[in-house]
Amino acid sequence: MALIVQKFGGSSVSDAAAMKRVAARVARTHKDGNQVVVVVSAMGDTTDDLLDLAGQVTDEPPAREMDILLTAGERISMALLAMAIDREGVPARSYTGQQAGVMTDSKYGRASIVGVAPDRIVRTLKEGQVAIVAGFQGVSGANDVTTLGRGGSDTTAVAIAAALHADVCEIYTDVDGVFSADPRVVPNARRIPVLSTEETLELASHGAKILHLRAVEFARRYNVPLHVRSSFSELDGTIVRNPTEEDPMEEPIIAGVAHDRSQGKVTIVGVKDIPGSASRVFSVLAGAEANIDMIVQNPPTDRQGVTDISFTAPKEGIPALVAALEAHRAEIGFEEIQHIENVGIVSLVGAGMRTNTGVSATLFGALSDAGINIEMISTSEIRISVVTLPEKLDDAVRAIHSAFDLDSQDVEAVVYGGTGR
Amino acid sequence: MALIVQKFGGSSVSDAAAMKRVAARVARTHKDGNQVVVVVSAMGDTTDDLLDLAGQVTDEPPAREMDILLTAGERISMALLAMAIDREGVPARSYTGQQAGVMTDSKYGRASIVGVAPDRIVRTLKEGQVAIVAGFQGVSGANDVTTLGRGGSDTTAVAIAAALHADVCEIYTDVDGVFSADPRVVPNARRIPVLSTEETLELASHGAKILHLRAVEFARRYNVPLHVRSSFSELDGTIVRNPTEEDPMEEPIIAGVAHDRSQGKVTIVGVKDIPGSASRVFSVLAGAEANIDMIVQNPPTDRQGVTDISFTAPKEGIPALVAALEAHRAEIGFEEIQHIENVGIVSLVGAGMRTNTGVSATLFGALSDAGINIEMISTSEIRISVVTLPEKLDDAVRAIHSAFDLDSQDVEAVVYGGTGR
Repeated sequence: MALIVQKFGGSSVSDAAAMKRVAARVARTHKDGNQVVVVVSAMGDTTDDLLDLAGQVTDEPPAREMDILLTAGERISMALLAMAIDREGVPARSYTGQQAGVMTDSKYGRASIVGVAPDRIVRTLKEGQVAIVAGFQGVSGANDVTTLGRGGSDTTAVAIAAALHADVCEIYTDVDGVFSADPRVVPNARRIPVLSTEETLELASHGAKILHLRAVEFARRYNVPLHVRSSFSELDGTIVRNPTEEDPMEEPIIAGVAHDRSQGKVTIVGVKDIPGSASRVFSVLAGAEANIDMIVQNPPTDRQGVTDISFTAPKEGIPALVAALEAHRAEIGFEEIQHIENVGIVSLVGAGMRTNTGVSATLFGALSDAGINIEMISTSEIRISVVTLPEKLDDAVRAIHSAFDLDSQDVEAVVYGGTGR
Repeated sequence: MALIVQKFGGSSVSDAAAMKRVAARVARTHKDGNQVVVVVSAMGDTTDDLLDLAGQVTDEPPAREMDILLTAGERISMALLAMAIDREGVPARSYTGQQAGVMTDSKYGRASIVGVAPDRIVRTLKEGQVAIVAGFQGVSGANDVTTLGRGGSDTTAVAIAAALHADVCEIYTDVDGVFSADPRVVPNARRIPVLSTEETLELASHGAKILHLRAVEFARRYNVPLHVRSSFSELDGTIVRNPTEEDPMEEPIIAGVAHDRSQGKVTIVGVKDIPGSASRVFSVLAGAEANIDMIVQNPPTDRQGVTDISFTAPKEGIPALVAALEAHRAEIGFEEIQHIENVGIVSLVGAGMRTNTGVSATLFGALSDAGINIEMISTSEIRISVVTLPEKLDDAVRAIHSAFDLDSQDVEAVVYGGTGR
């Protein structure tokens, strides 16, 4: 008998029929002798509908009330799912974040979980019932309702799995697992059976829409094995977990290729090459709440005493960042600012890179053979990222995927989409 | 400065525009220097939509989960109303039943309020904010969500008004107050400016759709003055309160005329006229969960040692009651059962009846003049009810209304409908 946390996103419970399909799966897991905790998101478009209602009432909704409003969505889905599971002959009880003991700080709209007190869930499981918990929500120290922001339901699931020392946290989505590349770009991408949390973090933070970073961070820190699976199929999915001593010494070198179309690029030309320049630049950017991804400082070449600093950031934020930098031109000291609103970033990720040389040579060779120009490069211990022109991004992904022999023989990928909130 | 509880039903907050209208009124009351607590129902059809969703999932929803589902409705409306009030420049905080300290027993779907611990509401008021409380819902001792059943939001409002020792509990609805008769039947019915809780209970329990019985009972017991008003007009409405020593010694004799089309009538013919017969009949009916209204036992006339017992009850329950009685025929001992599935009941209510003779003579005279046959009569100290054929009911209401000079000179009634939950 195992203790299993199952998380179902909004697309898995979009209507009554989907709800019944999920209920059947939960009931089967329970009947197989497991203890089951279900974390559920709001049904399909519920959240958008509620946002729309709020927009009809006011342009500036107070954050506290917005959180109360949005959490109605999970309240509806959790109660309906409990009914549907009950109909399968399995007793089920649903709990709000507050009832489930999901304690957060009081940052409405983007609260962080500070602890889980799962007493009621433990009691529910002991009584042989399925516990259903509203994802995405918690309760602050002042007994106020909070929401966890993007990736909230995944994070709820992992936090509860951690608190209960669950054997596994299954993340059900509309994708059959994590793939070696986005199958919409690389049709013969293959499913990755096992992935380390570290690799998953690198893939997810570089555009692979598989799991939310926060949830993976949580899973890594509390050592919770994740199982990413489709709620529409019985395929094996992908296990995401911290490496153990029993793992083979030699891991596969490469896990997969991620790509990201959401970034733009800014270059600050002619920054004085003296100590403190970069610091001033990035303190200005931090003040503008920039979410900087890659940073590259080109060494000065033909020009005396000046350098160029380039960085990428989400494209919708670029104009504000450029304005913030211009406003501090005198203080920072630079010649001009150039920006491209839209770039492509392709990233190769693999824990085996640490101990294998030649990876970057193969990568740059593949891009060169495909005639793709490199705009910018950045690396971590287990990742190499390259900025390209946006129209060359798909070619870059395919070239790299082939160069590292990631192409699958049989096409397993059926559906590939975004994850729920 | 007064402490005012304002309750708005579903029709008062049916959409964003209605919500804004309510918000403007609340903000005005607050700006006038009052402390305001708002109790709000779910928006318009929300509850029906949620019931429909549950119906798509299962035929037998567990009661606990049904309550969680339904309370999502108030969660949505209270958050939106808080946003709309905030938009008027008045700070507002919304609270669930649990947060507002509305403690109930654990009878899901029809819970009773066992106490109110309004600490957070008091604090909110002290901070100069409007407190918004979800109607219809509470929390059980086990921290489970409960709903209060029919009339729940009115009851929430009165219970909170009682706990806060509010100066008045305003019940906003789509009617301009309580009228001397249903204006759809008597177009020149007049608004009753002041009504005793006792009269209100008699009117409400005999078909006047004005206030829910539970709320009025609560108001009577805890001495909470109610003010029934329209959320669509600025008219004076009706004050409902316990009589005080300052009231004039001589009250108006008659408050109003109620009518009820929801009842059927059963006559048990030839019950043995011995001690215990009626007791056996009514213990059988109690076992069938009958909600008996009027009871009349005709004295035996030409037949030896037998009597007839007639009673009225909600018509949808009549077939089950007849079946229950038939099943206990031997035990009770009777000749036959007759029933009419549909009767009309007209009731004349007035606290002044106690000290005034001649009321029944006037009433029966009016019915006789109008050629209306009386099927059954029952009286209380402040009420006379008469059962008629259903097709004669409207005529009976009009005849009695005129006979007691209740007709208004100027037609004040604009809208008349049911109350929200």
